[in-house]
Amino acid sequence: MKIIVKLSIFLFCVTIWSQNVNKKDSTQLRSIYTEALTKGRSYNWLNYLSKNIGARLAGSEAEKKAIAWAKDELDKLGLTKVWLQPVTVPHWERGEKEEARIVTKHGEFKVDICALGGSIATSKDGVLAEVIEVKSIKEVEDLGAKVKGKIVFLNRAMPADKIETFRAYGATVDQRYSGARVAGKFGAVGAIVRSMNLKIDNIPHTGSMNYGENAENEKIPTAAISTNGAELLSKLLEQKDKMELKFFFKQSCEILPDVASFNVIGEIKGLHYPNEIIVVGGHLDSWDLGEGAHDDGAGVVQSMEVLRIFKELKIKPKRTIRVVLFANEEFGLSGGLGYAAEAEKKKENHIVALESDSGGFSPRGFGITSNDKNYEQIVQWKSLFEPYNIHIFTKGGGGADIGPLKKDNNVLLGLRPDSQRYFDYHHTDADVFEAVNKRELELGAATMASMIYLLDTYGIKTKK
Amino acid sequence: MKIIVKLSIFLFCVTIWSQNVNKKDSTQLRSIYTEALTKGRSYNWLNYLSKNIGARLAGSEAEKKAIAWAKDELDKLGLTKVWLQPVTVPHWERGEKEEARIVTKHGEFKVDICALGGSIATSKDGVLAEVIEVKSIKEVEDLGAKVKGKIVFLNRAMPADKIETFRAYGATVDQRYSGARVAGKFGAVGAIVRSMNLKIDNIPHTGSMNYGENAENEKIPTAAISTNGAELLSKLLEQKDKMELKFFFKQSCEILPDVASFNVIGEIKGLHYPNEIIVVGGHLDSWDLGEGAHDDGAGVVQSMEVLRIFKELKIKPKRTIRVVLFANEEFGLSGGLGYAAEAEKKKENHIVALESDSGGFSPRGFGITSNDKNYEQIVQWKSLFEPYNIHIFTKGGGGADIGPLKKDNNVLLGLRPDSQRYFDYHHTDADVFEAVNKRELELGAATMASMIYLLDTYGIKTKK
Repeated sequence: MKIIVKLSIFLFCVTIWSQNVNKKDSTQLRSIYTEALTKGRSYNWLNYLSKNIGARLAGSEAEKKAIAWAKDELDKLGLTKVWLQPVTVPHWERGEKEEARIVTKHGEFKVDICALGGSIATSKDGVLAEVIEVKSIKEVEDLGAKVKGKIVFLNRAMPADKIETFRAYGATVDQRYSGARVAGKFGAVGAIVRSMNLKIDNIPHTGSMNYGENAENEKIPTAAISTNGAELLSKLLEQKDKMELKFFFKQSCEILPDVASFNVIGEIKGLHYPNEIIVVGGHLDSWDLGEGAHDDGAGVVQSMEVLRIFKELKIKPKRTIRVVLFANEEFGLSGGLGYAAEAEKKKENHIVALESDSGGFSPRGFGITSNDKNYEQIVQWKSLFEPYNIHIFTKGGGGADIGPLKKDNNVLLGLRPDSQRYFDYHHTDADVFEAVNKRELELGAATMASMIYLLDTYGIKTKK
Repeated sequence: MKIIVKLSIFLFCVTIWSQNVNKKDSTQLRSIYTEALTKGRSYNWLNYLSKNIGARLAGSEAEKKAIAWAKDELDKLGLTKVWLQPVTVPHWERGEKEEARIVTKHGEFKVDICALGGSIATSKDGVLAEVIEVKSIKEVEDLGAKVKGKIVFLNRAMPADKIETFRAYGATVDQRYSGARVAGKFGAVGAIVRSMNLKIDNIPHTGSMNYGENAENEKIPTAAISTNGAELLSKLLEQKDKMELKFFFKQSCEILPDVASFNVIGEIKGLHYPNEIIVVGGHLDSWDLGEGAHDDGAGVVQSMEVLRIFKELKIKPKRTIRVVLFANEEFGLSGGLGYAAEAEKKKENHIVALESDSGGFSPRGFGITSNDKNYEQIVQWKSLFEPYNIHIFTKGGGGADIGPLKKDNNVLLGLRPDSQRYFDYHHTDADVFEAVNKRELELGAATMASMIYLLDTYGIKTKK
């Protein structure tokens, strides 16, 4: 038995070895990482985008500047072609700085809130009402008419025991997206949502919400409250009646008419299979708070860096490598949907799309949505990534903007950076350039360029 | 052939599977991570240590406070035993804030420096001299007497293309440790060393230096210059003669008599093999800049957390688990050496020592110094760590403080956190509590507790 095991280990190793070890590939990856870490441009680009343009909400003037800047920078790279693809984006404005207070008979407590993206304003004088705290949308539904005239306070915390913070986000973000819609149905006058934040601090986190099919009179103003504010409000609510506790908030946000915008696109034409298109991208829009440095300035500059590295290292791709900087991810994906619709119309063959939209942190691996054959091929490249501490190759991933490109046999990938710090910054004033580490950003860009290089070199497996 | 390969893969998988998958262990690890992430104390401890005690250089009053605090906190955990182990530590003081200027005939440029630990002072009026820039110790030796009367400027940058930043540090830190010794031998009047920093900023990085066997008149003052300062100085040196460039610096540091100090130790006695000792530790001292949060406040509180988790989860170890908070790592390891000497004298059997001294960043794995059998055993636990994104199990590691405990067949380990950000903070004013992410710190503690749990459960392999 022992001999069989040893033999089988040996054979197994030989099999794996012959599939994996490709000297040319490992040399190429080393050049890519060295280029990104020693002569990379991603960090300087991000500096400009964050500090000279800053927050760039869909439909804003800053978004226009970002589009012009990105096109200009791509133009300088000597790609085969750079262009703008028209799409329509919504236009919402936050208006004046929000105000919020917990009002009790013993005094008032100022707390930090920010309107959720898409929310209507309060009346000019704000909303003052009693508060009902719940931990889920289901609880709101169960309360039904009891929420009438009240402010619903959705306070389920992100579960800290999840290792991936995106899972903790997924487990709670329904409160933000749907809280106001459901509470409004039952006659609530406002919805206050605990910020999607694993830390306890004073920073409110915005993000999208949706009224669904609610009638006009069922649309209620909604805002995120900082986790510190949420903890205080919850504590004080324990003595609600004794305190005669009410909550006051005021916001002046506004939904304006849609605006013409653009996806920014550049490509290097493939030498052998120009009709096989490999997309790498991130979204150029951001929330209106902070500078959109991690979300998704990082993904934008990393995607640009992939094509710059190809040009700089004179890698002549077999297939067409296209960078797409999507418009309006945050407010309903119209950039991603528009891009996919035009690809469909033109019968373009998108074999691969790789997205970076999880922050500019140390890269850990990829999430991969593909058929089994392609997944296996990618997993066989694991050893090539080992020297760069890239270990995670999980099934599923490659989401929002590139999602509409999914076909039966193509491959979508999402870069997976370390997720622990992401929700310290996500959709807040704290998402600034200084929160991004140069090397972490650059390693991410190199990891993306390496994966694109391998996918271009070997193509994908399509069932016939 | 294909069938043989498939069979061999199958057999290989079965073998690995039976060795690896232990339901009880995976459940225990899950409990450990949940405890650390939801009820952990490491972050609050670090908050106190950083903000209420702060920098705690060996021999300082703050170090005494830190020792008293750590003992007090360990006393509260209900361990079998907590005690202080006397060791002697050096006592160096920085004195007044250093000053430095690049002096040219066109004007002066203020730059940021900090004295290196162990350096002597300049004269009261400072040192003003011409500068010779070199990229290595070898170059100083080659220049020989030509450095006489000059300030030697050691300006070899950390190589950015290394993936592990500790390798980039290892490739350059000889300049800091030995620059002044070698330059002093040849009659230089000062040594200015580029900070061990991969970023370009204004923060100087201190660290230890050594005069070796130099005679008194060969001991020269030495300081680190910020990377921005180093770049500027190097640039201006290109026109040295035209500029009539000199460098001025002034520092008032002082070497004082040795001081009595302590290692802080606590243990949970083993149920079955109490004489087999498993150590987990970090060093309680820090540099005098910043708050010593990453270096090594993080390692201290993570090590304390390991024992707290064992108590809280009622894990009754078979072997004795001992936390050791070492005195004076930064200034010559007298804590670690003293601990090992006493262990030797008492004929204690240290089978395992695990150190955390690479910052409180997202844990990636372990460096392991052991014989092959023990290494193989540890690698077989990989799948247990997979859900927590712990993938790196490399040979070699587990260094400074626990190094003196190395025996033929015992096991030393070092926690390996992600290293990208470490040298943004290392030995500087920037190494403060705010630079540590709560979840990253806690994941590190859980990873250490998990490894200690497995090593306690299965023991180590000793050749007979």
